[in-house]
Amino acid sequence: MKKKSFAEAECPIARALDVVGDWWSLQIVRDALRGVRRFTDFAQGLGVAKNILADRLKRLVGAGILQVVPASDGSAYNEYVLTAKGRDLWVLLVALRQWSDRWIPGANEYGQVLVDAQNGEPVAPLELHASDGRKLDLTDLRLVASASTRAKSA
Amino acid sequence: MKKKSFAEAECPIARALDVVGDWWSLQIVRDALRGVRRFTDFAQGLGVAKNILADRLKRLVGAGILQVVPASDGSAYNEYVLTAKGRDLWVLLVALRQWSDRWIPGANEYGQVLVDAQNGEPVAPLELHASDGRKLDLTDLRLVASASTRAKSA
Repeated sequence: MKKKSFAEAECPIARALDVVGDWWSLQIVRDALRGVRRFTDFAQGLGVAKNILADRLKRLVGAGILQVVPASDGSAYNEYVLTAKGRDLWVLLVALRQWSDRWIPGANEYGQVLVDAQNGEPVAPLELHASDGRKLDLTDLRLVASASTRAKSA
Repeated sequence: MKKKSFAEAECPIARALDVVGDWWSLQIVRDALRGVRRFTDFAQGLGVAKNILADRLKRLVGAGILQVVPASDGSAYNEYVLTAKGRDLWVLLVALRQWSDRWIPGANEYGQVLVDAQNGEPVAPLELHASDGRKLDLTDLRLVASASTRAKSA
């Protein structure tokens, strides 16, 4: 069954999910952030069927998240590297990891911890701040019509 | 085709995706954060088939992200409200929204902006900090074996 495309949806969350809202796609990005570049290495790390992997890699390239580059060792293989758009998904993956660590007991029992390279200590939870620097929680947030929307309605 | 379950996977990102890594699931959480509580309201807002919505709601309840409560107006309908675990996904949804606003041109042209309720200004980008408060970027991060893993190997 083909999923409905949200490409024309107004909501930016739906639009982002249209690009990355897929198990394999986000896990490909996760592995690419860790330095995986080759088809065979993605396939081995993810344990995903090659036809599914090929499809997801193609979609991620089409969405401007990955780009295809010649192999770094001069061999005939292509490699996949993240674009700036793709690398910027690291915040989303940190949010996912931190939520999992807080709420899925045992998910990380034998796993790895995200630390600051400089001091080796685990990083703090992601924080959202107001324009004046105050730390914000969920209850501090409102969704309002953007200025351009208000201008069009006026 | 049934997806492979990551429930036993070691990676906390994969484990989190096993729970919320689904277009509809994350959009249900998004709408629940905005106050949607009833099946018919989720269905109308999302434009999703009722059988898919029923399945996703059931999975989110099973995963402890939503809970079923009696209708707030005393009617016979049940309502779905987020648990603390579910509400805590707001950081992930903010990360998704901010990435979309930065990288998907036009995704939010007619949309809404996330503002701080107190000053009405758009919120700042999510920030990751070290334990000593320094702001971290992707290049500052390392994944290391957790202390418990190291203890087990020793």
